[in-house]
Amino acid sequence: MLKFNITAPDRAIEPAIREKIDNLTKPKGSLGRLESLALQAGLIQQSLTPCLYNPVNILFAGDHGIIEEGVSLSPKEVTRQQVGNFLRGHGGVNFLCRQHGFRLKVVDVGVDFDFRTGMTAPEPGVVFYSRKVRKGTSNYLNGPAMSATEQKKCLLVGIEMAEKSRREGCNVVSFGELGMGNTSASSIWMHLFTGIPLSECVGAGSGFNSEQIKHKYEVLAKAVENFKHKSAAPGSVEEMIRWFGGFEMVAAIGGMLKAAELKMIILVDGFIMTACAMAAVKLCPAVKDYMIFAHCGDESGHRKMLEALGAEPLLNLGLRLGEGSGAICAYPILDSAVRMINEMESFRGAAVTKYF
Amino acid sequence: MLKFNITAPDRAIEPAIREKIDNLTKPKGSLGRLESLALQAGLIQQSLTPCLYNPVNILFAGDHGIIEEGVSLSPKEVTRQQVGNFLRGHGGVNFLCRQHGFRLKVVDVGVDFDFRTGMTAPEPGVVFYSRKVRKGTSNYLNGPAMSATEQKKCLLVGIEMAEKSRREGCNVVSFGELGMGNTSASSIWMHLFTGIPLSECVGAGSGFNSEQIKHKYEVLAKAVENFKHKSAAPGSVEEMIRWFGGFEMVAAIGGMLKAAELKMIILVDGFIMTACAMAAVKLCPAVKDYMIFAHCGDESGHRKMLEALGAEPLLNLGLRLGEGSGAICAYPILDSAVRMINEMESFRGAAVTKYF
Repeated sequence: MLKFNITAPDRAIEPAIREKIDNLTKPKGSLGRLESLALQAGLIQQSLTPCLYNPVNILFAGDHGIIEEGVSLSPKEVTRQQVGNFLRGHGGVNFLCRQHGFRLKVVDVGVDFDFRTGMTAPEPGVVFYSRKVRKGTSNYLNGPAMSATEQKKCLLVGIEMAEKSRREGCNVVSFGELGMGNTSASSIWMHLFTGIPLSECVGAGSGFNSEQIKHKYEVLAKAVENFKHKSAAPGSVEEMIRWFGGFEMVAAIGGMLKAAELKMIILVDGFIMTACAMAAVKLCPAVKDYMIFAHCGDESGHRKMLEALGAEPLLNLGLRLGEGSGAICAYPILDSAVRMINEMESFRGAAVTKYF
Repeated sequence: MLKFNITAPDRAIEPAIREKIDNLTKPKGSLGRLESLALQAGLIQQSLTPCLYNPVNILFAGDHGIIEEGVSLSPKEVTRQQVGNFLRGHGGVNFLCRQHGFRLKVVDVGVDFDFRTGMTAPEPGVVFYSRKVRKGTSNYLNGPAMSATEQKKCLLVGIEMAEKSRREGCNVVSFGELGMGNTSASSIWMHLFTGIPLSECVGAGSGFNSEQIKHKYEVLAKAVENFKHKSAAPGSVEEMIRWFGGFEMVAAIGGMLKAAELKMIILVDGFIMTACAMAAVKLCPAVKDYMIFAHCGDESGHRKMLEALGAEPLLNLGLRLGEGSGAICAYPILDSAVRMINEMESFRGAAVTKYF
């Protein structure tokens, strides 16, 4: 396994940050989550004046062999079609990136399609990276989704993207995903990482009815059973990641870990990215200090997974699109928090009686 | 009572808006609240391409005679001090206005202070209006807070501000308030409008402990009892508003009603503005179609009041600052919704297989 040098933020600065926040011209605590976010940003950046620079949404795309088993309503071709749609600037993630000034990096880690080279000149603010590990994972019903070498390649892609973004001046990053079938892998990871019964981890994906959910559950239960019998190390987190992971999900784990090592603020998106965040936390617990859990979606199990992580999501807007959409929707709240600590006047400075 | 000509949006356009939203390149319903907001904006503007122009936060300020009874921790002088702080651009509402491109109109409807005329040249984007009805309301423990003439004056100030904003090109407006003691009036209105026991409507305001809350409750219970005995029309909504209202709250009611008449989108802030929204709905039920309930704060009773209104707040960030802060924090979500319906491509246009 690759090593990450992630250290928890030094708490020595915490009293000074709290004192600054408590002396802004407002009743103490009256800006709620903005105050806790400002504290977190200050701790991560070790600063009384935290700043947000050049936000980036890194969107990893890949296909999943498991969808042969009928666990996804959406046909696989949607993955490649949506990549094109993103590059033209017309997808859900695009208007959010434009709205909040995010650059969008679309990274093909394993889409089952040969993109033309012309794809690399998309609309302004969008960059395409071809980092295909393979054209989709293997069907994990009876064996691992990927080899250990492929797993490492995916992590390295994530690391590369986080590093590149940091070098370009970004200090706040969200991760998004695109991959038909990736709620299945997320449900299994959630089950394996938390011990919550698989039935409570499996949901409607992008629109299943109850009978289809039952089928999905049966396929995934069988896959987990086979994993426990066939894997040489069924108790290893790395092995769980390798056996079920989508290429795009493993890349996101690498990206999150590297981003934390580089002391970037990480915005965590919906169900699938929360599963990746949980995997990252299992590997390096200190990564969590760098994470802001942006959104609790409708996918069954998402709230339970957030609870297992001790995470309180900022938003609950019923989103279940993925792509980083929930994370980007939460960005203005973080921006508000940072503006609060930088732009509000203190009681003394404003000559306002301290009130409650 | 002044008349408002508020009509519910024509629903004939609704199927066309829904069809447009359902054909954007995303699983149906996967953008959750963004989709319902886009529908609401489309209905209000009778358009498949709703737009947001020149948002304004109209902040009414006034003092409350009831605070003589010890129902507020914060001293009255904070009202006038904070007006100055807002005009200098240093308050909580200011950084949010700058962040989201809101103009800020600070309207003195009844602050117990003579502002100097120099106050009218504040920082860019902030405008001060001197529309003082009186220097604070009367203590409503034993009699009405204001006369019928004063009530009408306040409504007219609200009307003037909404009309002025509309003429300046604004089509989306939030209302904020500043007034030490105004959670008390809000709690009483909530009790009188909904029938929820007063004890469940009285909360911590800006930071009371349980003993102080008990005292506040007792004062307010006595005030309500006196109202029922002394008022000539204790069952009239207008009378309830007049008897307990803050000048700033009555102005906000006038502003909301006029804004709806002018088919503007109204962002409803926290506990106090929700009480004003409820008063406006009691007077003209159709106003509700123009309202977006932005935030559920921590003030006890706020959630119950929202439930009584059948409103689902967009955010729950633990804010209890007032000033319009919660409403403005929710603006980017509305902006996302409008961008979604205008900027996302349809399945057909993007050549993406319709998926689920």
